[in-house]
Amino acid sequence: MSTALIILAAGQGTRMKSDLPKVLHQIAHAPMLVHAMKAGQVLEPEKIVVVAGHGAELVQAAALEWDESALIANQNEQLGTAHAVAQAGPQLEGFEGDAIVLYGDTPFIRPETLEKMAAARAEHDVVVLGFEAQDPGRYGRLVMQGDTLERIVEFKDASDEERAITFCNSGVIAAPAKLLFDLIAEVKNENAAGEYYLTDIIGIARAKGLSATAVACDESETMGVNSRAELAQAEAAFQATARAEALDNGITMHAPETVHFAHDTHVGRDTIIEPNVIFGPGVTVESGARLRAFSHLEGAHVSRGAIVGPYARLRPGAELAEDTHIGNFVEVKNATIGEGSKANHLTYIGDATIGDGTNIGAGTITCNYDGVMKHQTTIGDRVFVGSNTMLVAPVSLGDDAMTGSGSVVTNDVPDGALALARARQETKPGMARKMVELLKAKKKRKEAK
Amino acid sequence: MSTALIILAAGQGTRMKSDLPKVLHQIAHAPMLVHAMKAGQVLEPEKIVVVAGHGAELVQAAALEWDESALIANQNEQLGTAHAVAQAGPQLEGFEGDAIVLYGDTPFIRPETLEKMAAARAEHDVVVLGFEAQDPGRYGRLVMQGDTLERIVEFKDASDEERAITFCNSGVIAAPAKLLFDLIAEVKNENAAGEYYLTDIIGIARAKGLSATAVACDESETMGVNSRAELAQAEAAFQATARAEALDNGITMHAPETVHFAHDTHVGRDTIIEPNVIFGPGVTVESGARLRAFSHLEGAHVSRGAIVGPYARLRPGAELAEDTHIGNFVEVKNATIGEGSKANHLTYIGDATIGDGTNIGAGTITCNYDGVMKHQTTIGDRVFVGSNTMLVAPVSLGDDAMTGSGSVVTNDVPDGALALARARQETKPGMARKMVELLKAKKKRKEAK
Amino acid sequence: MSTALIILAAGQGTRMKSDLPKVLHQIAHAPMLVHAMKAGQVLEPEKIVVVAGHGAELVQAAALEWDESALIANQNEQLGTAHAVAQAGPQLEGFEGDAIVLYGDTPFIRPETLEKMAAARAEHDVVVLGFEAQDPGRYGRLVMQGDTLERIVEFKDASDEERAITFCNSGVIAAPAKLLFDLIAEVKNENAAGEYYLTDIIGIARAKGLSATAVACDESETMGVNSRAELAQAEAAFQATARAEALDNGITMHAPETVHFAHDTHVGRDTIIEPNVIFGPGVTVESGARLRAFSHLEGAHVSRGAIVGPYARLRPGAELAEDTHIGNFVEVKNATIGEGSKANHLTYIGDATIGDGTNIGAGTITCNYDGVMKHQTTIGDRVFVGSNTMLVAPVSLGDDAMTGSGSVVTNDVPDGALALARARQETKPGMARKMVELLKAKKKRKEAK
Repeated sequence: MSTALIILAAGQGTRMKSDLPKVLHQIAHAPMLVHAMKAGQVLEPEKIVVVAGHGAELVQAAALEWDESALIANQNEQLGTAHAVAQAGPQLEGFEGDAIVLYGDTPFIRPETLEKMAAARAEHDVVVLGFEAQDPGRYGRLVMQGDTLERIVEFKDASDEERAITFCNSGVIAAPAKLLFDLIAEVKNENAAGEYYLTDIIGIARAKGLSATAVACDESETMGVNSRAELAQAEAAFQATARAEALDNGITMHAPETVHFAHDTHVGRDTIIEPNVIFGPGVTVESGARLRAFSHLEGAHVSRGAIVGPYARLRPGAELAEDTHIGNFVEVKNATIGEGSKANHLTYIGDATIGDGTNIGAGTITCNYDGVMKHQTTIGDRVFVGSNTMLVAPVSLGDDAMTGSGSVVTNDVPDGALALARARQETKPGMARKMVELLKAKKKRKEAK
Repeated sequence: MSTALIILAAGQGTRMKSDLPKVLHQIAHAPMLVHAMKAGQVLEPEKIVVVAGHGAELVQAAALEWDESALIANQNEQLGTAHAVAQAGPQLEGFEGDAIVLYGDTPFIRPETLEKMAAARAEHDVVVLGFEAQDPGRYGRLVMQGDTLERIVEFKDASDEERAITFCNSGVIAAPAKLLFDLIAEVKNENAAGEYYLTDIIGIARAKGLSATAVACDESETMGVNSRAELAQAEAAFQATARAEALDNGITMHAPETVHFAHDTHVGRDTIIEPNVIFGPGVTVESGARLRAFSHLEGAHVSRGAIVGPYARLRPGAELAEDTHIGNFVEVKNATIGEGSKANHLTYIGDATIGDGTNIGAGTITCNYDGVMKHQTTIGDRVFVGSNTMLVAPVSLGDDAMTGSGSVVTNDVPDGALALARARQETKPGMARKMVELLKAKKKRKEAK
Repeated sequence: MSTALIILAAGQGTRMKSDLPKVLHQIAHAPMLVHAMKAGQVLEPEKIVVVAGHGAELVQAAALEWDESALIANQNEQLGTAHAVAQAGPQLEGFEGDAIVLYGDTPFIRPETLEKMAAARAEHDVVVLGFEAQDPGRYGRLVMQGDTLERIVEFKDASDEERAITFCNSGVIAAPAKLLFDLIAEVKNENAAGEYYLTDIIGIARAKGLSATAVACDESETMGVNSRAELAQAEAAFQATARAEALDNGITMHAPETVHFAHDTHVGRDTIIEPNVIFGPGVTVESGARLRAFSHLEGAHVSRGAIVGPYARLRPGAELAEDTHIGNFVEVKNATIGEGSKANHLTYIGDATIGDGTNIGAGTITCNYDGVMKHQTTIGDRVFVGSNTMLVAPVSLGDDAMTGSGSVVTNDVPDGALALARARQETKPGMARKMVELLKAKKKRKEAK
């Protein structure tokens, strides 16, 4: 059965107190909208329609960045969830498959849950996602008769008996696309808020003799985000899950609560992650690596046996081969570091390729930017780059080359050659003591003024 | 009504196991004493008397640093709270207004609470601050008769009926200054500890037909600190409140529990604070800035759109204009960074003024100290400072100037000029390989010894 | 009474999902095996026998690293705990003292608990360590008759009445070595698992008319580790205890939950530890020091009044005298820093000796490695090392010496002398503007291609 996702992402999110549309606030370095899109991927959707409203252009850009085939529908007025879904109608004109309605501010629906809904659709016309609520509060209640969902009752319209129901509505709903839009067309806004509620389609469907059911998920999946505090709670929930999974996969973390994963982090077994390590998006770490304390990784690949940190920063395009060492106060960006090579102290490596068994001395900088363009540095195997070498790109050092410490290297250095660019040391006896006296006298004169 | 604060700050705090007087231990980078003084500010006190004892000189210095008009009274012997308050008498000789007694080790009384006490004073001679205790334990009990506070009973003197009372004494008390000292003069020390208890003045006042009442605050406000563990708990309580307020103000924090605020931090809406950011005192961050992971800010001002970190350290006097970038392993102290200027890697900027649109290369250092005095560096607009430039202050770079990487700049560089201070590169073919052989041979000889 | 420890350390720990033997996973930077060995030290054991199986060579190496007199017994097949203990028999042939069986994956048994067991041995032939279980679940139950331990019943063999017992078996057991092996020789493997259970010796001993008893410890001491999640929980338990002890000893921590101690960290009273400080093994910090945020210490000694960090890394052999300052982005390894000396910014000090009152400028690097060997740098008292000085070791700077910023110092500098190695600055008027134009034109041509 081909499927279309309809993702409601039009809300302003006033309680977020933000200029950014609510669904673009991030959890684990991906917008909430993308979390919803990712969950829906399990259904291999033929079409994805994002219903945008507030900040529609930004929402569209984010949707397209994640999936360039995403379609956008605009909901210019906010007249309720049924109205929001209706806006997706033109984009799904003639679409014969199923539609499933997801929410851009409900990032934790699990793929397995959507699969269960798809399976239930085989036997029912409309499928709603429900959950057993710890504290049902003001949630809409799902009125079941055996397997059949009779209707969804809003809390304020519910009888005492209905309020006693603890099986609640998540808002996620699946139906044939055509049927969905037909049912929505019959929804009325005769209620206190004057809004068109998607939930009303169940009663309408049942009245027509169509079948409806509800599938249950864990309440934690339905966690919505309406404020920064809830965003922080959602992030914490994501991290708790990610940490537990990492431990379960055979990763050691001294203090899991201080490690922050991104939505797409991969770490191999027997890797040790020390406290205070942060993953931005796009990081893969192989087995048996060591990520030392206070490291920050983003868009990087770390191979088996590599040691990163403490205080190492790997930026996008950092590619570390096996047994590399990237040490303290070292930044690597868009650079490949060959097997067993080391850059252990106070170094900036950007836009570079470094061979195997090379040692980068403390304070080395690839001067990759000339104020207008970025340039490449190429370093061979077994090179010894002396401390505080400036490599003015574009420049290359051949295999087994060496640079003297404090050299500014502007010309290529052939294999096995030594490059030096250094003034000869002059030592002036007694001069230091004299200078200090002079400086102290100067200070005294200054203070006397 | 003019008001005087009397802040009791004489205790040694033996359980702190510290050489520092208890009230000088800090919460959120301010001494507990200062938290009490800050809370009292809402009453616009005409006089502030700090009653010091242990470490009186240090206590006095801290009080004066916060408010240079603060008065100090010395309590040389510790004979009880009434005795402590009595020491403030001479400093308030002839003072016609109200006095309110606060405690230097009780940092969380809220200004609103003190306002409520002041309002209650309009109708009662003496006002005590009470709280509903979750677990009343050994707290003194407030015996109320309607609105009237009849007396305060110490736990050990209380009847079973009185022990059942859960409304307890915080110790904070307000009364006309003159009346307060008169009542205290009648307090006796006929008790097991041989101490003069401030609480006794309620009974004395009531016996004279004066009116007394109690105002309630939240128990959390009365949290006292007697050990390092309690100090850590108090810090945690402060941080929990500060984090909740920041979220509520529209700030995103990925991991609020890893962000540490100071008592006076201001952060604008839509600023994103990544994990592990620490604020020292005196920081203001405008809206829409980004504070990346592992950043440390103190006495700094960060403008809209600026990006700080990861691993950036802003020290006092760091003034970042809009859209500046201060990147990893960069320290900025007493320096103004102009709009859109960047210092992204491994740099020390101290005692400097930098214009707009300037790029500071990796490894740049303002050499501001000559061993005796500090000097100023001035950099214009659109300057390109090459990597690893040493700017030997005092020195200036004009607008559109440029420095070659690895240069030591000791003379001023005019607008549009290029400064170079660099030895020419010599490349010695085959020399690197030869040197490695020589070094290896040397090592072998050494090891053979 | 002389004592032998038998430490069972043969398990694979499948649920750890690791190539490393379970007992070598670390808590607070020491293998779990070593925690067990450390606890046993209180008994001043004459012999320590580690029963190894999976990864026996690695286990042996770790045991010997901690105590070079440790003996290893190999358990090639895993046939149960009694079988494991039996493997220690040959190593204890003729040993006349007591034996106590500990577990390499149970790191938290307290020394005091082992002392209690030793004391109980004076009156009973066999002593078992038990604990009152919050949730006895499937633990073995200790069937007591007054002071006498009648038998240990496995959960699955227990009657309802026995299952109601909450006093459970930790597995730790003490008996005369000879008796222990004699009893084990009678253990049968006629049970579902086909294993030889050490617990069976109690029933056997009682049947022979020998006396047995159980000593109680806190349940937390018996925490075993079988997965990475449990390892993380054990680490958290260790840290919670270490933090509470540190607070209790008069140390201030703003955020104790962010400070990570090693198993052997010593910190003196009135030291302040800011958030996010990490201790590796072998650190001693004296009283009244300050460890600022984001610092990482390992194998270092920090004296009274020293200030470390923020972002300072002290590596093994860092020896800081009183009132030293090691500041941001500074790494110190195998180096002594004299009284009042400072290295505050972006510096690497390795293999060096620095005198008193010396100032190390920003960006200084001791170039201690020539690609083959490490060499020593010696710096005297009151030296002023200019910013970005490269000290090419072996090299020495005498007292009161000075180096010009940006100098590469390759020759020794006598007392009071100034060393300079610097190209003269050339300033080329208008050249910067010209270069930018040229670069922009070049870029345009490139983009046009």
